[in-house]
Amino acid sequence: MFKINENYLKLPGSYLFSTIAKKVSAYSAANPDKEIIRLGIGDVTLPLAPVVIDSLHNAVDEMGKAETFHGYAPDLGYEFLRNAIVEHDYKKRGADISADEIFVSDGAKSDSGNIGDIFSVDNKIAVCDPVYPVYVDTNAMAGRTGDYIPEQQKWSNVIYMPCTAETNFAPELPKETPDIIYLCFPNNPTGSTITKDELQRWVDYANKVGAVIIYDAAYESYISEENVPHTIYECEGARTCAIELRSFSKNAGFTGTRLGFTVIPKDLKSGDVMLHSLWARRHGTKFNGAPYIIQRAGEAVYTEEGQKQTGEQIAYYMNNAKTILEGLKSAGYTVSGGVNAPYIWLKTPDKMTSWEFFDYLLEKANVVGTPGSGFGPSGEGYFRLTAFGSYENTVKALERIKAL
Amino acid sequence: MFKINENYLKLPGSYLFSTIAKKVSAYSAANPDKEIIRLGIGDVTLPLAPVVIDSLHNAVDEMGKAETFHGYAPDLGYEFLRNAIVEHDYKKRGADISADEIFVSDGAKSDSGNIGDIFSVDNKIAVCDPVYPVYVDTNAMAGRTGDYIPEQQKWSNVIYMPCTAETNFAPELPKETPDIIYLCFPNNPTGSTITKDELQRWVDYANKVGAVIIYDAAYESYISEENVPHTIYECEGARTCAIELRSFSKNAGFTGTRLGFTVIPKDLKSGDVMLHSLWARRHGTKFNGAPYIIQRAGEAVYTEEGQKQTGEQIAYYMNNAKTILEGLKSAGYTVSGGVNAPYIWLKTPDKMTSWEFFDYLLEKANVVGTPGSGFGPSGEGYFRLTAFGSYENTVKALERIKAL
Repeated sequence: MFKINENYLKLPGSYLFSTIAKKVSAYSAANPDKEIIRLGIGDVTLPLAPVVIDSLHNAVDEMGKAETFHGYAPDLGYEFLRNAIVEHDYKKRGADISADEIFVSDGAKSDSGNIGDIFSVDNKIAVCDPVYPVYVDTNAMAGRTGDYIPEQQKWSNVIYMPCTAETNFAPELPKETPDIIYLCFPNNPTGSTITKDELQRWVDYANKVGAVIIYDAAYESYISEENVPHTIYECEGARTCAIELRSFSKNAGFTGTRLGFTVIPKDLKSGDVMLHSLWARRHGTKFNGAPYIIQRAGEAVYTEEGQKQTGEQIAYYMNNAKTILEGLKSAGYTVSGGVNAPYIWLKTPDKMTSWEFFDYLLEKANVVGTPGSGFGPSGEGYFRLTAFGSYENTVKALERIKAL
Repeated sequence: MFKINENYLKLPGSYLFSTIAKKVSAYSAANPDKEIIRLGIGDVTLPLAPVVIDSLHNAVDEMGKAETFHGYAPDLGYEFLRNAIVEHDYKKRGADISADEIFVSDGAKSDSGNIGDIFSVDNKIAVCDPVYPVYVDTNAMAGRTGDYIPEQQKWSNVIYMPCTAETNFAPELPKETPDIIYLCFPNNPTGSTITKDELQRWVDYANKVGAVIIYDAAYESYISEENVPHTIYECEGARTCAIELRSFSKNAGFTGTRLGFTVIPKDLKSGDVMLHSLWARRHGTKFNGAPYIIQRAGEAVYTEEGQKQTGEQIAYYMNNAKTILEGLKSAGYTVSGGVNAPYIWLKTPDKMTSWEFFDYLLEKANVVGTPGSGFGPSGEGYFRLTAFGSYENTVKALERIKAL
């Protein structure tokens, strides 16, 4: 008799964004005349940049001719893309990463979920609280998180690092020593960042205690301030303790196009075993590459024209972020984020819970955001808005919120 | 101190096709003047069909305009694709599968590797021997296969079902009861098939013993004979015991374009728990959809023109299969497969081992095939050739083999 993975049954409710989608579609069905503005899920709205579109068309044409057709991609991804990544994202930042340490994938969500495969179940993870749900949920699926304690909204075997107003929305080094530390900067959901010196402390700490840092840098292109690191490999010693996850979703609008990559330096070892080898084995056995045409699209992002065009998209979204930030402030909200990240983190008014504020905003302003408590217990009483809407809708949403 | 997944260290050597690639590239470097013909890896060579190319161009244009841009895809895949799949692959075959039982993915390799996530480590798997390496390797990574016994080329906790000339290259019901049974028909690597009545016996058996069948039907479009089932859901009772994996790689040349799907009927349960719900949770948490443009390309395959054009590609490859089959026969080889599948399975001559024959063929004929022993111990003394080369190269390869 076959047996299921019982860990799945421990997961509370459904994936956060599925729950939101269901609530919104129920409200929408009951109120078909209401025009809903979605500033909830972190999905982009601007079309792909012209240079990316051109590149896709060219690659599609190649796939239509026998001489230029491409079958299975190389295990790690095409060299043209890995070389562009190394040149632009690492060498220019003074980070010592080589092309054969880059693993091209279908996105950072898959990689952040799958990376757990190469680690023993017997590892204790530390996560920021609030946190992107995928880190915790996928570790729960693997049986690494103990049991869920509904009263606390916490797992029994996870080290939570509170990121609240008191900590300036940054985690402090945990008292209990973790084996695997998930960090995401610029942060989803709070939009906070840490300085290079602060990140260096994490790298030093991980090397000291023998922990591995899984560093999610999906939002690095939104960094506007100096002294905020764009990659963890700007820090000394990161090659022996850090895995970095990157995405094309937010810097180039690839949420529906799917491309990302993971960096595993060959110096990152457990005894004699390179984590690079383990991930190479997983990548080669359980994945078959991102589509050729999509990898060509990714390459186009790194051209001069691609950088200019995607840079304009980021500027557009960051202007939205400014609109939200200033609008909320003028309406008396306590807000943070939105300067180095497309996320604005606000304190709910009148001691409302996050979900109460979600319902309130949906019903009274027809604006969809994301309840902070969906990201962890320390997110309770907070709420996330994203800058990924259109400028017109963002302005309209803020007018509605101000009018409440 | 972080700990790795030690199961990875039990895996013998590298992934089969990586090993072959290394051998070929070493030979090629040492003999730059030799023209090598690759009939080894199952990669296609014909370009994408014109209707698929048109559809890709259209979808790319949509991604370039705000009004028709697509961000994150629905969790299960776009309805337009799932509806086309249900209509064409199931309803037309009299199989009772609905669109919300289809999970669109980036390919059958990912799905066949990841499907193990929803099952307990404490399940015993049964596999055909020889078999597509991904089934066993991914179960080994999960810790489900015991220890590798090099002398036997077997794992200690796997039920092997020999598929040899004696069994007509089909598995017999195992003596020991398995929990999870992997079946692939038309078969990779042997090219064999079983009849609908034979498959019905497996479905009845699985329902009787409470096993789940993971049915890989990636090659169904190559079926040319009557009475060979195209889907396991043609069999009565399959909805309560079978998961089916499908791919666009071999029927439409998507090896470098990446698209596939998995079918999990809602009647397939462990107690009250639907496997459908578990996979939906995994799909929603660890995956973010196949690209919109690729899902549109998949839809085009199901149009009348798409069926005609991809049908011609399959006919082209099956003509190659016939060329290989007849050529080998006339050269005195013992061969099977190649009638309902793009794979030809031959007995190595003069009691050569599979790898000896690999080296022999590479060095003497400059033809690359796949050693049968790479697929399991019962594959020893066999060798796989694929029909996916160009017709010209296939003819040339056979001339060289005949001349040996």
